[in-house]
Amino acid sequence: MNKIKASIIGASGYAGAELLRILLLHPNVEVVGITSVSYTGQGIETIYPSFTKICEKLLVTEEEAVELADVVFASMPHGLSQELAATCDKNGKVFIDLGADFRLDEGEVYEKWYGKEYVHEDLHKKAVYGLSEIFREDVKNTKIIGNPGCYPTSISLGLYPAIKNQLIVADDLIIDSKSGVTGAGKGLSQKTHYPECNEAFSPYNIGKHRHTPEIEQTLSKFAGKEVRVTFTPHLLPVNRGIVSTIYCNKATDMTLEEIRNLYVEAYKNEKFVRVLPLGDCANLKNVRYSNYCDISLHEDTHTNKLIIVSTIDNMVKGAAGQAVQNMNIVFGFEEDAGIAFIPPAF
Amino acid sequence: MNKIKASIIGASGYAGAELLRILLLHPNVEVVGITSVSYTGQGIETIYPSFTKICEKLLVTEEEAVELADVVFASMPHGLSQELAATCDKNGKVFIDLGADFRLDEGEVYEKWYGKEYVHEDLHKKAVYGLSEIFREDVKNTKIIGNPGCYPTSISLGLYPAIKNQLIVADDLIIDSKSGVTGAGKGLSQKTHYPECNEAFSPYNIGKHRHTPEIEQTLSKFAGKEVRVTFTPHLLPVNRGIVSTIYCNKATDMTLEEIRNLYVEAYKNEKFVRVLPLGDCANLKNVRYSNYCDISLHEDTHTNKLIIVSTIDNMVKGAAGQAVQNMNIVFGFEEDAGIAFIPPAF
Amino acid sequence: MNKIKASIIGASGYAGAELLRILLLHPNVEVVGITSVSYTGQGIETIYPSFTKICEKLLVTEEEAVELADVVFASMPHGLSQELAATCDKNGKVFIDLGADFRLDEGEVYEKWYGKEYVHEDLHKKAVYGLSEIFREDVKNTKIIGNPGCYPTSISLGLYPAIKNQLIVADDLIIDSKSGVTGAGKGLSQKTHYPECNEAFSPYNIGKHRHTPEIEQTLSKFAGKEVRVTFTPHLLPVNRGIVSTIYCNKATDMTLEEIRNLYVEAYKNEKFVRVLPLGDCANLKNVRYSNYCDISLHEDTHTNKLIIVSTIDNMVKGAAGQAVQNMNIVFGFEEDAGIAFIPPAF
Amino acid sequence: MNKIKASIIGASGYAGAELLRILLLHPNVEVVGITSVSYTGQGIETIYPSFTKICEKLLVTEEEAVELADVVFASMPHGLSQELAATCDKNGKVFIDLGADFRLDEGEVYEKWYGKEYVHEDLHKKAVYGLSEIFREDVKNTKIIGNPGCYPTSISLGLYPAIKNQLIVADDLIIDSKSGVTGAGKGLSQKTHYPECNEAFSPYNIGKHRHTPEIEQTLSKFAGKEVRVTFTPHLLPVNRGIVSTIYCNKATDMTLEEIRNLYVEAYKNEKFVRVLPLGDCANLKNVRYSNYCDISLHEDTHTNKLIIVSTIDNMVKGAAGQAVQNMNIVFGFEEDAGIAFIPPAF
Repeated sequence: MNKIKASIIGASGYAGAELLRILLLHPNVEVVGITSVSYTGQGIETIYPSFTKICEKLLVTEEEAVELADVVFASMPHGLSQELAATCDKNGKVFIDLGADFRLDEGEVYEKWYGKEYVHEDLHKKAVYGLSEIFREDVKNTKIIGNPGCYPTSISLGLYPAIKNQLIVADDLIIDSKSGVTGAGKGLSQKTHYPECNEAFSPYNIGKHRHTPEIEQTLSKFAGKEVRVTFTPHLLPVNRGIVSTIYCNKATDMTLEEIRNLYVEAYKNEKFVRVLPLGDCANLKNVRYSNYCDISLHEDTHTNKLIIVSTIDNMVKGAAGQAVQNMNIVFGFEEDAGIAFIPPAF
Repeated sequence: MNKIKASIIGASGYAGAELLRILLLHPNVEVVGITSVSYTGQGIETIYPSFTKICEKLLVTEEEAVELADVVFASMPHGLSQELAATCDKNGKVFIDLGADFRLDEGEVYEKWYGKEYVHEDLHKKAVYGLSEIFREDVKNTKIIGNPGCYPTSISLGLYPAIKNQLIVADDLIIDSKSGVTGAGKGLSQKTHYPECNEAFSPYNIGKHRHTPEIEQTLSKFAGKEVRVTFTPHLLPVNRGIVSTIYCNKATDMTLEEIRNLYVEAYKNEKFVRVLPLGDCANLKNVRYSNYCDISLHEDTHTNKLIIVSTIDNMVKGAAGQAVQNMNIVFGFEEDAGIAFIPPAF
Repeated sequence: MNKIKASIIGASGYAGAELLRILLLHPNVEVVGITSVSYTGQGIETIYPSFTKICEKLLVTEEEAVELADVVFASMPHGLSQELAATCDKNGKVFIDLGADFRLDEGEVYEKWYGKEYVHEDLHKKAVYGLSEIFREDVKNTKIIGNPGCYPTSISLGLYPAIKNQLIVADDLIIDSKSGVTGAGKGLSQKTHYPECNEAFSPYNIGKHRHTPEIEQTLSKFAGKEVRVTFTPHLLPVNRGIVSTIYCNKATDMTLEEIRNLYVEAYKNEKFVRVLPLGDCANLKNVRYSNYCDISLHEDTHTNKLIIVSTIDNMVKGAAGQAVQNMNIVFGFEEDAGIAFIPPAF
Repeated sequence: MNKIKASIIGASGYAGAELLRILLLHPNVEVVGITSVSYTGQGIETIYPSFTKICEKLLVTEEEAVELADVVFASMPHGLSQELAATCDKNGKVFIDLGADFRLDEGEVYEKWYGKEYVHEDLHKKAVYGLSEIFREDVKNTKIIGNPGCYPTSISLGLYPAIKNQLIVADDLIIDSKSGVTGAGKGLSQKTHYPECNEAFSPYNIGKHRHTPEIEQTLSKFAGKEVRVTFTPHLLPVNRGIVSTIYCNKATDMTLEEIRNLYVEAYKNEKFVRVLPLGDCANLKNVRYSNYCDISLHEDTHTNKLIIVSTIDNMVKGAAGQAVQNMNIVFGFEEDAGIAFIPPAF
C-alpha cells in the first residue's frame, strides 16, 4: 500500500508521544520526522523508554521534519504553530494542529484568552475545527485543521443531539468536568507531584479555563444562537480520561427514552460514539486507551433536569486519536484506520 | 479525669472502626463495648490488623455493649437502630446514630426513600439532626442524635452562609459531589473491586441518591422555604474525602470578597470550618484524616454564578468525627476533644 | 484472508476478557464462541461495558463454543480443563490452556500443589509448556499448550541467558516479585477491595505460592539440573504488571557489560524481549498493555551479586498475549500478529 | 505543664512539615521557630494549605529559630547540618538531625557515599544513632542525635532479634525494599510526576543506595562483626510507607514459632514494634500515619530461608515520628508522647 508521510512537531510532549504511538502502527502512514525543541538529536526512546526497540528515531529540527511530510501534526505551546501552518499551506501540506491556535474563529477571542494575536487571518479562515463526527464534511475539504481540546470534545459530543433537537434550554448550561493528570502535560509542577496529586481532588481555574470560549463557540454553532456555559474543570487522580457531567434544563416533554432514541439516531453511523443503555452511567474506565466517546443520559424528574455524562480518553479522542481520525478523513482512509483500539476492561 | 463510657454498635464496619480509632484516644471516654453481628466473639484486630496491640477487644453482643455504656453509637444498616434508640431512651443513655434512621423529620419521606417505617414517632420527634456547627444548641439538649450523612455535611456547611444571607437563588441548586471509596463501605462489590475502581471514575444513582431528601430538608430549614437540589454523586478513586462543587445563581450584587466576608463571619467561631482565601480551591487532600471542612468561593462572572467548593473527610467530619463532636457537645467536653487532628500534608 | 476460528472458554474472567479483546482485532482469527458458566445467555458487554458496540456476543455453552472452533482457549479454575483438552484432542482442535493444568510435567507435583489428579496422562505428555521464546520449536509441533503463569514468564525470561550461560549459581535464587491486582482475578475479596488495597502493599503466600514448582521446573530445564528458588510474591497497588527482582550469586568473572552482551545475543531475534541499556531499570510502566518483557541487569559488586529485573504485563505477556503468540506459532502466522501493541508511555 | 521550646530547620520539606504536624499537638512542646531557605517570610500554610488556621507561623531565619529553642530539629540536604550542630552544641541545645550527617561513625565512609567531609570530628563522636528501641540508653545521654534513615529503620528493627540471637547467617543478606513516593521528598522530578509514577513500579539505585553503609553499620553492631547486605530499593506508587522483605539463610534448627517467640521477647517492652501472629503478612496499610513498625516472620522450608517482612510509615517512624521519640527519650517525657497515633484502618 502506498503510504503517506507524516511528521510530528513536538513529539516529546504527551500528545506528541501518544500520536507517535498511534501513527507507528497506522496502515497508511509512514512517520518520517519527529521533533522536539528541547531534545533535538536524542532518540525518542531516551525520553519515553516505552519506545525502546520499537521506534528509536532521532528527534530532528522542524525544517527537516516538515520538508519530508505530506501531513504535519503540531503539538506545541499556543502561539507557535501559526508560522508552521503558513509554511505547510505554502507547500501544499496538510496541517493538523493539536494546540489551540486554530480552534477559535475570532482573533479577538483568541487574544483575550491566550494573549497572542492571529498573524495570518486568511489561514484561520481556511482552518476547520476538527470535531470529526460533527464537522466531517468541512474536514474533508480543508488542509488546515484545528484539533479540538479535550474538554470541548467530551462536552460537544455529549450535547450535540440535545441542542440540535432543542431538547434543552441551551443558554444556561452547567458543566462539571474531571480530567486525568496527563491533561496537565509533561511539565513538572507541585500539583502534579505524585504525593500531592495522589489521594487528592480539586477543581482549578474555575470560571476562567481557556477551553470555555471554545466550548461556547461550538455549542453556539449547534444552537444557532449564543450559548453560555459555566465550566468547572477538576484534576482527577488517574492517568487518563475525562468525565463531563452536564446539567441542562429540559425544554421538552419527551421521556428520557425518547431523548435517548434521538441520541442513538444522531450517532447511528458513528463508530466512535456510544450511547449507553438507560440506567448505565458512563465511566472513563470503559474508554481509556481508545477513541470512543461514551454518553449516558439521566434525568432528575423532581427538578426537571436532563443530565448528560460524556467520557473520553483525553489523550486519544481528546487529542492524538481524533487528530488521526481527522487525517483519515482528509486523506480518504478508513475513518477508524489505526485507531480502532478496543478499550481494555481493566 | 472522670470518663464517660461509650459503646459502638456495628464496630466492624468502616464508620464503626473509624469511631473506635478516635474514641480510643479521646481524653474523656472509655470504650466499654464494641459489637458486630457478623464477628461476635472475635477480636477487632482480626478484622482490622491496624488495631493489633492497641485494641484487641472482643466484639460482644449488643445487649452487653449497651448495658455498660453512657453513650451508644450505632453504625448499622438503616432500619435497625430504632429499637436500639428506644432502649437507650428508656435507660437514659445518649444515643448517636451514624445511620440514616434519625436524620429525616418526616416518617413519610423516610419510607419513600428507605422503604421502612418510623416505629417510634416520639423518638423521632426528640431526635436532633447533628450538624454540629449549625444545630449546636439543639444538640446540647437532646439525647438522640441523627448524625448527618457525609454528602449532606459537606453540602450544608458549604451553603449555610449563602442561603442564610440570601445571596443565592436557593430553589435551583446544582450539586456535583465526588466521594472516596470508603463511602461505599466495607461490603464487597464489583465496582469497588480494585482493578475496576482504580483508574476509573463515574457518577452513580443520578437523581435518586438517598441523601437528596436529607440535603433538601436541611437547606430548606436554612432558607425558611422549600429548596430543591439536583444532586449527583460520583465515585472517586481515592480512599477518603468528599468534594462538593455547588453551582448557584447569585441573588446579590455583592462582590466575591464581600460574600467571602459573610462566610468568614458566619464561621468565625468554628474551629472546624475553614473559609479559604480567594483564589484557592478547596482540595480534599488538605482535610483528609481530620475533622475540618474547607470551603472555597468562586464566581463565573459571565454567567453570574456563585460556585462553592466544600470538602471534608467523609469518614471523619462526614461520619465518626462529627459523631464525636456531637458527643462532646452533649456532655459538655471541649468541642474538639479527641478530634483535633491536624490533616497531614501528604 | 482465510481466518481460523477461535473460542474462549471462560471469557468472563480477566484473562478471558483480555484474550477476547486481542483476538477481536487479530487479522487471522474469527472469534466464534465465548463461554462463561456464570453468565451463559448474557452478552459479554453486560459484564464488561468496554465491549459495548464492539462485541456484544452472547456467552454460550462450552459444547457450542468448542464445536465451531479450530482453536480453543481455556481460562478456567484449575482441574477443569483436562476433559476439555481431551475433547479437543479427539476432534483435532488446538487447545491452549491459560490455567495451570498443563504446566507441570509430573502429575505428582500437580497433585501436591493443586490437590487434583492428572486424569489423562497421555495428554500431559503431549502438552508443551508454551514459553514462546524458549520452547518455540516444541510449540510448533503440538496441539496442546500449557500457557505459562504470569510470575513464571517474567522470571524464566529474566533468568534464561544467565542460567544457560552458567553465569550464576543456579541453586539458590532469591526472587522477589510484585504483581498488579488483575493478577488476583475478577473474584471479590477483602484484600482486593479498593479501600484496603489502595495505598497498601504486602507480600502473600510466602514460601508456598503455586507458581513455585512451575518456576523451578522451567529453570531446572535451563540448568540441566535441579534448581531451587525462594519465591515471594507481593500485591502491588496497580492494575497491571509484574516486576520480578532476582538475586543471584555470580559464577563468572565477566563484567556486567559482557553479561549484558550475552543477554542481547540470546534475545537478538526476539521481538518481545528487550534487554535495556546498562544503567536503566526495568519499569512496568514501559510494558503495560503490551506483549513486551523488559529486562535490566545490575550488579552489587561488594556482595558479588547479579541482580536481574524483569517486567511484563501480567495480562498480556503473562496470560492472553503469550497465548495468542503461541497460537500464532502453531498456525504459522506472523508471531506478532494481533499482539504488536506499542506500550503507551503513560 | 512546662513545655520545652522546639524549632525546625527546614520546615518546608516533607520531613519538616510532618514534624511540625506532630510537634504542634505534642503535650510537652511549644514550636517556637520554623525555617526554610526558600520561603523565609512566608507563612507555612502558603506552602502546605493543610495548616490553614491551625499553624500560620512565618518561616524565619535559622538564627532566629535556633536562638529561641531548647531542641533543634534539622531536616536539610546533607552537608548542611554540621555547623548547625556546632552552634547547638556550644549553646547547650539538643540537636536532632533528620538528615544523613550524623548517622555514619566514620568520616571516611561518609565522604565515600556523600562526597563531603566531617568538619567537626568531636561532634560526630558525641553523636548517637537514634534507633530508639535499640540505642535508647545512649540516646538518653547525648545532645546530638543522628536520626536513622527510613529504609535502615525498617531493616534494623526487622533484623535485630535474628542477628542478636544468631538465628541467621548474617553476612549475606538480601534486602528488597519498597518505599512510598514521599520518600523522594518535595522536589520535582520526572519519575515522581504523577502520570509517570502512577501505575508504575521500578527499582532504583541498585547496589549503590546511600542507605547501604548505614544499614551495614547498624547490623554489624548487632552482629559484633562485619555484615554485608545486598540492598535494592524500589519506588512504590503510594504516598507513604516502606516494606522491606529480607531474605536470610537460617543458622538455627528452631521452628518458626520459636523464632517468633524470641522476637516477641526482644520487643516485649516496645510499644511501637508489633510482631505479628504467624501466618499474617506485614502490610504497610496497617502502620500508615503511625509510629509503629510491624514485623512478620516466614520461612521457606524447602530452601531453609527465614524471610522477615518489616514495615513502617517512612515519614513517621522512618523520619519525624522517631525524631520525636528520640526527643521524648532525651527530655524524659513519656516515650509515646505526641506520637501515639493509631494507624487508620483505611
